[in-house]
Amino acid sequence: MLKVNDNYLKLPGSYLFAEIARRVAAYSAEHPEKNLVRMGIGDVTRPLAPSVIEAMHKAVDEMGKAETFKGYGPDFGYDFLISAICENDYKARGIDIAPDEIFISDGAKSDCGNIGDIFSTDNVVAVCDPVYPVYVDTNAMAGRAGDYDDKHECWTKLIYMPCTKENGFVPQIPAQEPDIIYICCPNNPTGTAATREQLRGWVDYANYVGAVILYDSAYEAYISDPDVPHSIFEVSGAKTCAIEFRSFSKTAGFTGTRCAYTVVPKALRRQGASLNALWGRRQSTKFNGVSYVTQRAAAAIYTEQGKKEIKETIAYYMNNAKIIREGLSDAGIEVFGGVNAPYIWAKTPDGTGSWDFFDILMKKAGVITTPGAGFGPSGEGYIRLTAFGSRESAEEAIKRIKQIL
Amino acid sequence: MLKVNDNYLKLPGSYLFAEIARRVAAYSAEHPEKNLVRMGIGDVTRPLAPSVIEAMHKAVDEMGKAETFKGYGPDFGYDFLISAICENDYKARGIDIAPDEIFISDGAKSDCGNIGDIFSTDNVVAVCDPVYPVYVDTNAMAGRAGDYDDKHECWTKLIYMPCTKENGFVPQIPAQEPDIIYICCPNNPTGTAATREQLRGWVDYANYVGAVILYDSAYEAYISDPDVPHSIFEVSGAKTCAIEFRSFSKTAGFTGTRCAYTVVPKALRRQGASLNALWGRRQSTKFNGVSYVTQRAAAAIYTEQGKKEIKETIAYYMNNAKIIREGLSDAGIEVFGGVNAPYIWAKTPDGTGSWDFFDILMKKAGVITTPGAGFGPSGEGYIRLTAFGSRESAEEAIKRIKQIL
Repeated sequence: MLKVNDNYLKLPGSYLFAEIARRVAAYSAEHPEKNLVRMGIGDVTRPLAPSVIEAMHKAVDEMGKAETFKGYGPDFGYDFLISAICENDYKARGIDIAPDEIFISDGAKSDCGNIGDIFSTDNVVAVCDPVYPVYVDTNAMAGRAGDYDDKHECWTKLIYMPCTKENGFVPQIPAQEPDIIYICCPNNPTGTAATREQLRGWVDYANYVGAVILYDSAYEAYISDPDVPHSIFEVSGAKTCAIEFRSFSKTAGFTGTRCAYTVVPKALRRQGASLNALWGRRQSTKFNGVSYVTQRAAAAIYTEQGKKEIKETIAYYMNNAKIIREGLSDAGIEVFGGVNAPYIWAKTPDGTGSWDFFDILMKKAGVITTPGAGFGPSGEGYIRLTAFGSRESAEEAIKRIKQIL
Repeated sequence: MLKVNDNYLKLPGSYLFAEIARRVAAYSAEHPEKNLVRMGIGDVTRPLAPSVIEAMHKAVDEMGKAETFKGYGPDFGYDFLISAICENDYKARGIDIAPDEIFISDGAKSDCGNIGDIFSTDNVVAVCDPVYPVYVDTNAMAGRAGDYDDKHECWTKLIYMPCTKENGFVPQIPAQEPDIIYICCPNNPTGTAATREQLRGWVDYANYVGAVILYDSAYEAYISDPDVPHSIFEVSGAKTCAIEFRSFSKTAGFTGTRCAYTVVPKALRRQGASLNALWGRRQSTKFNGVSYVTQRAAAAIYTEQGKKEIKETIAYYMNNAKIIREGLSDAGIEVFGGVNAPYIWAKTPDGTGSWDFFDILMKKAGVITTPGAGFGPSGEGYIRLTAFGSRESAEEAIKRIKQIL
């Protein structure tokens, strides 16, 4: 008789964004006349850059002719994309990453989830709190999280590192020693970012105890502060303790196009094994590469024209962030983030619960946000707003919120 | 200190096709003048169909305009693709599959590998021998295969079901009771296919013992025999014991475009849990959907014109299969497959080892094949040839092989 992975049966409720979608659908069905402004899910809205579109058309044409048709690509990505990444995302910042340390994939969410395959289920995992739910749920599915404690809304075996207003939203080294440490910087959901010095503390600690940092820098393109590193590998020593996840989703509007990459340095070894080799084995066995057309699309953002175009889009979103941040602040709400990241993390007024404030904003203002509690216990009392909509919708949301507060 | 998944350390050598690529690269480097005919890896060579190209261009244009831009798609695929699948791949064959039983993905290799996430690592797994290596390696990585026995070239905990000339390449129900049963039909690597009656035996058995059949029908479009089912769900009772994997890779030349789907019936439950719900949870947590452009590309093969175009390409490949099958037979080699599948499974002459025969064909005839032993112990004494090249290369390969035999 087949036995299911009973860790799945311990997962509470559904994935956060599925739950939000359910509430919004139910509310919309009851109030079809309401025009909702959606600032909840972190999805981009601006079209792909003209350089990307041009590269995709060209690649599609290649796929239509026998002489230029492409079947299976290299398991870990085409050289043209990998070398553009090495050159622009690393060498240009003085970081030496070799082509065979880069693995192209269909998304940072997939990679952040699948990376656990190469680790023992015995490892102790530390996550920030609040946290991108994928880190927690994928470890729960693998059995690393223990059991779910309904009362405290947390997993018994995970180490939660609170990131709150009080500590500037930067995790402190925990009392219990972790083996795997997730750091998302610039942070989703808080929109804040760690400085070089703060990251150096984590790198030194991880090397000291033999832990591995899983560094998610999906939002690095939004950094404006020169003291915030774009890559963990800007910190010396990181190559012996860190894996970095990058994505084109937010950098270039690829949420519906699907391309990302993961950097696993060859110097990163544990128990005599190369994590680079293990991840290579995982990917060549359980993945078959990314669409050629998509890889050509991604490579186009590294051309001079492509760089210019994606910078304009990022500036557009960051102007929205400014509108939201300043607007909420004017309305008397305490806000964080929105300077090095497209997320604004706002304190709910008068200690209102975050799902309650979510419902108030949906029902009274017609604005969809993400309740902070959905990201972990320390997210209670906050909501997340994203800057990925149009300028008009950011202005409309602020106007409506001001009216009801 | 981080602990790696030590099951990975038990994996012998590298993935089969990586090993072949290594041998071919080494030989080509020594003999750059040799013009090799590649009939090894199962990769298509014909361009994407004109209808697919047209749909992709249209979708790319949509991605370039704010009004039609698509961000994150539905987790499990767009309705336009799912309904085309329901209608054409199932309803047209009298099978009732609901839209929410279909999960669009980036490849059957990914799904066949990732499906293990929802099963306990305690399950006993049965695989055919020879076998597509992904089934074995992914279970070894999860710890379900036990240890690798170098001497016998097999895993201690897997049940191997020999498929040989003697049993018509159809697996027999094994003495030890399995919980998970992999069946690939039409079969990779043997190119043979089970009849409806033979599959019925497996479905009845799986329902009786509570096992789950993982049914890989990536090659169903190549079936010519009316007695070979295109889907396991043509067999009554399959919905309570089977998961089906389908792919556009071979059906429509999508190996470099990446689209597939998996059917998990809602009637399939074990230990009170719905496997459909577990897979949905896995995919919504560790995957983020398939590129919109790619899903439009896949949907185009279900239009009248698209169907006609992909049929022509399949007929082209199957004519190659005929050339290879008949040519080898003329040369005195015993051949199987190539009628309901694009693979020809050929007996090596005079008991030659399959890696030896691989080397002979590469070095003497300049023809690259896949050694049967790479697919499991019972593949020893066979080689696999694929029909996915050009007609000219099939003819050239046969001519060269005839010259050296």
